[in-house]
Amino acid sequence: MKIAIAQLNPTIGDILGNSNLILEAAKKAGVAGANLLLTPELSLIGYPPRDLLMDANFIAAAAAQLQKLAPDLPPELAVIVGTVVPNVHAVKLGGKSLFNSAVLLQNGAVKQVFHKRLLPTYDVFDEDRYFEPGENSNYFTVGELKIGVTICEDLWNNEDFWGQRSYAGDPVADLAKLGVDLVVNLSASPYSGGKRGVRSAMLQHSVIRCGIPIVYANQVGGNDDIIFDGSSFAVNRKGDLIQVLNSFETDFAVLEYDENKQDLVGSNQQIAVAIEATKLSFAPPEGDAEIWAALVLGVRDYVRKCGFSKVVLGLSGGIDSALVAAIASCAIKPENVLGVLMPSPYSSDHSVNDALELARNLGMAIEMLPIADLMKCYDRTFADLFVNTTFGIAEENIQSRIRGNLLMAISNKFGHLLLSTGNKSEMSVGYCTLYGDMNGGLAVISDVPKTRVYSLCRWLNAGGYADAAAPRPGSEIIPVNIISKPPSAELKPGQVDRDSLPDYDVLDEILQRSIEHRESVPEIVAAGHDEAVVKLVVKLVRQSEFKRRQAAPGLKISDRAFGTGWRMPIAKASFY
Amino acid sequence: MKIAIAQLNPTIGDILGNSNLILEAAKKAGVAGANLLLTPELSLIGYPPRDLLMDANFIAAAAAQLQKLAPDLPPELAVIVGTVVPNVHAVKLGGKSLFNSAVLLQNGAVKQVFHKRLLPTYDVFDEDRYFEPGENSNYFTVGELKIGVTICEDLWNNEDFWGQRSYAGDPVADLAKLGVDLVVNLSASPYSGGKRGVRSAMLQHSVIRCGIPIVYANQVGGNDDIIFDGSSFAVNRKGDLIQVLNSFETDFAVLEYDENKQDLVGSNQQIAVAIEATKLSFAPPEGDAEIWAALVLGVRDYVRKCGFSKVVLGLSGGIDSALVAAIASCAIKPENVLGVLMPSPYSSDHSVNDALELARNLGMAIEMLPIADLMKCYDRTFADLFVNTTFGIAEENIQSRIRGNLLMAISNKFGHLLLSTGNKSEMSVGYCTLYGDMNGGLAVISDVPKTRVYSLCRWLNAGGYADAAAPRPGSEIIPVNIISKPPSAELKPGQVDRDSLPDYDVLDEILQRSIEHRESVPEIVAAGHDEAVVKLVVKLVRQSEFKRRQAAPGLKISDRAFGTGWRMPIAKASFY
Repeated sequence: MKIAIAQLNPTIGDILGNSNLILEAAKKAGVAGANLLLTPELSLIGYPPRDLLMDANFIAAAAAQLQKLAPDLPPELAVIVGTVVPNVHAVKLGGKSLFNSAVLLQNGAVKQVFHKRLLPTYDVFDEDRYFEPGENSNYFTVGELKIGVTICEDLWNNEDFWGQRSYAGDPVADLAKLGVDLVVNLSASPYSGGKRGVRSAMLQHSVIRCGIPIVYANQVGGNDDIIFDGSSFAVNRKGDLIQVLNSFETDFAVLEYDENKQDLVGSNQQIAVAIEATKLSFAPPEGDAEIWAALVLGVRDYVRKCGFSKVVLGLSGGIDSALVAAIASCAIKPENVLGVLMPSPYSSDHSVNDALELARNLGMAIEMLPIADLMKCYDRTFADLFVNTTFGIAEENIQSRIRGNLLMAISNKFGHLLLSTGNKSEMSVGYCTLYGDMNGGLAVISDVPKTRVYSLCRWLNAGGYADAAAPRPGSEIIPVNIISKPPSAELKPGQVDRDSLPDYDVLDEILQRSIEHRESVPEIVAAGHDEAVVKLVVKLVRQSEFKRRQAAPGLKISDRAFGTGWRMPIAKASFY
Repeated sequence: MKIAIAQLNPTIGDILGNSNLILEAAKKAGVAGANLLLTPELSLIGYPPRDLLMDANFIAAAAAQLQKLAPDLPPELAVIVGTVVPNVHAVKLGGKSLFNSAVLLQNGAVKQVFHKRLLPTYDVFDEDRYFEPGENSNYFTVGELKIGVTICEDLWNNEDFWGQRSYAGDPVADLAKLGVDLVVNLSASPYSGGKRGVRSAMLQHSVIRCGIPIVYANQVGGNDDIIFDGSSFAVNRKGDLIQVLNSFETDFAVLEYDENKQDLVGSNQQIAVAIEATKLSFAPPEGDAEIWAALVLGVRDYVRKCGFSKVVLGLSGGIDSALVAAIASCAIKPENVLGVLMPSPYSSDHSVNDALELARNLGMAIEMLPIADLMKCYDRTFADLFVNTTFGIAEENIQSRIRGNLLMAISNKFGHLLLSTGNKSEMSVGYCTLYGDMNGGLAVISDVPKTRVYSLCRWLNAGGYADAAAPRPGSEIIPVNIISKPPSAELKPGQVDRDSLPDYDVLDEILQRSIEHRESVPEIVAAGHDEAVVKLVVKLVRQSEFKRRQAAPGLKISDRAFGTGWRMPIAKASFY
């Protein structure tokens, strides 16, 4: 038997477009002689649809499109489509009005429906807001073969692997009891650093525990802040990875299930390639390559799915904007990227030159709009009101906000999407200006710590950019001076980030312990950090909540990003 | 038996401060001879604590404070405190790590614990993100009396009242089966227009259905976008409201339960007052008074709980900023409110005069910062880049962003919280400038439709303001010209809102049908609206998502506000 995986990149809400992606894949699967086609979770409507699910017309449109799609598919091919299905018992018995379902289409009609049982409500997930959990696990048959169906989280309650149980039910164990020969999974599993390795390790563990091979079809593509990496794969009964689909791009593969061997089969070469593909490290350079690919996809899809074709960003001569310019140039080609230099009297001599050199290296267009006159004009405007006050945060922020205003005017005038360039270290401690450098429709690196910004730029210069964005030679892309000079906001003479913040290697470690590992102040101090510094950092993070609440969506690459999965009150007291 | 209700206004995360509020109330209850004191849901930590619940140190701090509080309470008094309690079985059996609980303290120790069973996940609620539902309902005894304990949503699954079941379980029915004499409820039920009437009608219905009197203790106070109105109340066995606590302020009351009559008792006068208090209408003028009180509380608490004492806002001479100035003046006194006039060459002659008159009427300070020079300076800056383009959205937005920059500079310089003044109609269709007039730490009226802005201002002038903010006489507060002139953004000569938008009475009805009632385009057209207009409005709402995502928290007064309960994808396609 042949099983095709369509690793699709749906657009949320684009029911017709997504239906066409499924139809194309089904035709391809038919030509390849496949018996079964898997698509990702909610492939017909895109994941996560969020509150679109509360629109009855949207639900009706999805149901209507499913009915239209079924007769167009190759009749013999079993196609599993992810979509929502009404919970008709909700009104009488209580419960949510929808199921998150896998619908088996064959011979022009709906043959069987499977409901997701385990509904995640952590991080970016809100599935209990919309869905009723399915009560049982079930399978369908192709010939003699029993194929158990699971949806994303249904696979993630492996108690032995995690050392604890997350849900009462265990769909994989239940399917094993039903004696299925194979488990398939429709996923929309977001990317985070190292996640691909976690997924394959967990599923290999599950396969060995239950003795059933698994085929895992994941969504790919960027949807607002969430990047889906694809990286679909299959594990045979022995626990070997027999195939891994590409990461960060749409892909299609046909796998073989051998009824005699009662297992998925692959050539030794395929298996070797698959194993190599999941030997992933989050440390540089592998981590850099992975994060780079994620960010490029995130930018490309946000630009495309929001209907833009060009982007604009401010080029300060600093490393953050340099990295974002490189990502954008790779994502949508340099000719669609406009960099704007907005030097002030506090800009260092080399800032403009560094920015110009970067733009030349990337092949992107630039404009220069000096802001000295505007700064003076704001000074004159405030002459009376600010008399006898000293230069401070207000004046520094005015500069950042002049630049933000100039960039938005260009965005409004020419229809370019503005990208903001702040990194996660800054966003954590509030070292950024609301309505200034935070301006933008997408915060490209707001989940990338400063130390990772450096390592990404070094990786780019070491050849990463040439590999990723073929047109440029592999030589220096980010001017070395941008990497080597001390980071500075250049909002007053001689200012460097170190005046206000700990060194970034110290800051990033404290932030990672506090935010991602949720360690307390005493725990972080016990790890060797200065108590006063740790307390300062934790306080700055807490006080910056109001800025993050108004930040642009930021591409998520960590397990705990500031975005839809970060839900902190603003008006609050410290409990310490 | 005497039952005290402490209608508290906790600060989220302020465990020690909240504990002291409970302690004070307990002392007062002790002096009043009460046997039992009720506090609101999660009274020890404040509702909603959101992702603070994911901080193990926070959970530990709450548990430690509960242990400290218990021995300080009057020993005989039974005190029910709302807090979180660990779910010790989560690791082995699966499930969330916390319960949302009511802890009964007596004689210096924890006597009994009750867990919330029905966990809301709609609108602003995310309780499945944090909590495991309690499995059973239970009661405690005071003398011979069995008192059943419920928490907020536990009361809201009245199938007969709503015409459908929301949850499988029904805690009230279960308590009735257990033969309890009285049901108490710890709530944190947010305000929305008319919600007080809904609550009392539903609980009167539940009392009559189950034959058990109910005492309902609700939280009061503003927490970010959510305003809790208090309005705690009690219903006797016949379904009469026997007492209603004040709305929009902290309150305390002692009720009498007569063991012989087996019922809550109140004097005829108390009952008459209570019934009158819940005869509420959402139509003006009652709706205006209620919304006004909610917004005043929302501003006051956000300012206070964020640690500010003064606010600043732009005064355009228009009705939105006039209303916000009046709300702020009432909330934190006019001497703590600074209005900034920022006229441009496009400002009409009367705008400045109207704004000055408003400030005089309210007694607030003003500053004037004309923006003509800055506009010219931006023009010069863009002279080359924008050559041969026509005046449009880019130039209009520059003006709004100059003003936003000026206001933020004042906020930064003097430490005033900036209030933004956009209304819900504008926020819905995107008739507002991101990083311009949307700037601010709190969007005071972003859930108030324009037509309601008018009715609130008329109500203020008819005496509402004098009643609410005692220091001013009841005469005209909002200059009549501000109410009577056609609304205009004044970003180009002769511009009025009607150039771009339908009349506000039409727009607001379409928006209410589309957003709050979730009607489709055909349904709204069938109600008598022009199809082209309806389609335009729906499209504008959809396209403005990116602006709302970066908006300041906005005080919620409707059942469907743009805020933590509105979760729409930005990058999406229309399914129509």
